[in-house]
Amino acid sequence: MADLSPTSINWQLYLHSIQEKNIRFLSRAISLVENGVSGYELLLEALPHPNDTPVIGITGPPGAGKSTLTDALIGEWVGRGKRVAVLCIDPSSAFHGGALLGDRIRMSEWYTHPDVFIRSLAARGSLGGLHPGILEITDLLRAAQFDCILIETVGVGQNEIEIAGLADTTLVVLVPEAGDEIQTMKAGLMEIADIFVVNKSDRPDADLFVRNLRLMLSPAFHRPGRETAIVKTIASQKQGLEELMQKIEESLRQQQTAERRNRLLTERAFYLISKRRMKDVDKGEMNQKIARQTAAGTFNLYKFVSDY
Amino acid sequence: MADLSPTSINWQLYLHSIQEKNIRFLSRAISLVENGVSGYELLLEALPHPNDTPVIGITGPPGAGKSTLTDALIGEWVGRGKRVAVLCIDPSSAFHGGALLGDRIRMSEWYTHPDVFIRSLAARGSLGGLHPGILEITDLLRAAQFDCILIETVGVGQNEIEIAGLADTTLVVLVPEAGDEIQTMKAGLMEIADIFVVNKSDRPDADLFVRNLRLMLSPAFHRPGRETAIVKTIASQKQGLEELMQKIEESLRQQQTAERRNRLLTERAFYLISKRRMKDVDKGEMNQKIARQTAAGTFNLYKFVSDY
Repeated sequence: MADLSPTSINWQLYLHSIQEKNIRFLSRAISLVENGVSGYELLLEALPHPNDTPVIGITGPPGAGKSTLTDALIGEWVGRGKRVAVLCIDPSSAFHGGALLGDRIRMSEWYTHPDVFIRSLAARGSLGGLHPGILEITDLLRAAQFDCILIETVGVGQNEIEIAGLADTTLVVLVPEAGDEIQTMKAGLMEIADIFVVNKSDRPDADLFVRNLRLMLSPAFHRPGRETAIVKTIASQKQGLEELMQKIEESLRQQQTAERRNRLLTERAFYLISKRRMKDVDKGEMNQKIARQTAAGTFNLYKFVSDY
Repeated sequence: MADLSPTSINWQLYLHSIQEKNIRFLSRAISLVENGVSGYELLLEALPHPNDTPVIGITGPPGAGKSTLTDALIGEWVGRGKRVAVLCIDPSSAFHGGALLGDRIRMSEWYTHPDVFIRSLAARGSLGGLHPGILEITDLLRAAQFDCILIETVGVGQNEIEIAGLADTTLVVLVPEAGDEIQTMKAGLMEIADIFVVNKSDRPDADLFVRNLRLMLSPAFHRPGRETAIVKTIASQKQGLEELMQKIEESLRQQQTAERRNRLLTERAFYLISKRRMKDVDKGEMNQKIARQTAAGTFNLYKFVSDY
């Protein structure tokens, strides 16, 4: 086994091995990025750019069946002879110190499949709700020449707006019970969905739900130039997957404009620059300073910030 | 009406008026922060620090009844002779260009009440999922001497982990249907809840849900030194509010340690510093640069970022 101390890492070997689809090197490189081992930027700068591997975001509220759907979609791609990489971002892992068992149980069939690579990442309370190394890790997967990359995130909120900067197309998975129109809009999902997947669509109120969703997507609300498909599925029974795959392909085709790609790259650059500029800010140190000043009664948040 | 051009703003007058509970000046000051009118930092640095107004975060998935609960809680505080400020953060407003009608309808009773101040803020796709001026606006409310500040955010995900840096205590509102244990944990709510509110608790599976929730809060999962209460409510019928108010007061008492306050201040300082450091990064400009480089075939994300 190679020496993995930060100073002795042979990044050229990593780059070469990853491009040769060596999964062990890929896994290690991801761990190095995850742990912020210094020097990995060199590896990233050496990666080939640009790369057209489609990145598909899968998001939606808890209980909508995202993992089951992801599991089924892996099957569709593998069935077409494709190599698939899956990143599961799990915000609760900050608490449990590791990814949850749930995903693993649901996707266990794929963990040992030679054409499937699954990695769970803890969100670790990073500012954006995404794993802090998500962009870099996705670029490593691109370099490893997967045919498609799935990124599953949990939650309903702004974190998905960010994966919109990461994903070429975004599926929002809902269940018919997800709520009335107002509540659904409130979830902030309208902006980021390229495809709405109404899962568990055998439930009695599914058609009403789809009708309401369609109403919300009428021209008055609709983003110009961007079409949002609605697909009904029953992921646990692998129903609706053909149509979903077709819609994903259509959406990816639509999205492949220079304008859109540049917008996504802008979002990614912004995120990475922000990460770099804040690298020197040590929260522990800052906390000690604040503690001293509050104890002395001299602390003023806005002065503190402008002095920093 | 005062001249509101940025150069002629009399910040001393603003400060004085806000501290005198002048709602019109408070509203205008919030708008100035919201619109990033230059110079408002002077106002903020002049605000009195620290200030003990409790800030209560209210969050949870769409459809859980957060607005109805907020509405009922306003009634509880007003009934105790308190002045209450409410901020509703609405992520979907980025799309609609304004806060949603839903909240307004639900809380309409309070919009004209002299002891209640309600403001809806659009999240505008900011990195953190919170309104970019949320910290500053909360400090303006503190200066206006409200007895308590409620911050309602929509969504299940990391944005709540951030309001944990903003709020002294955080209520997570759930409904019995929200899902099984695994799904609930996945939502990343465990880390941030000080109080779980199981709303609509007249539903048949409410007791089972509470039991599962309690199981999850058992010592194996539990954060040391932090107690998480569970309160059943039916907000629409104002049931369970007495107990909830009591738990909120207990939680606020528990949280009022120097250590916790310093941790919150550290989170706030980090957020504000990040905002300042990224102020010069103009996404439009960056997009143009990226477009030129991708067209020329010279773009490399990681080189671009390290050169910026």
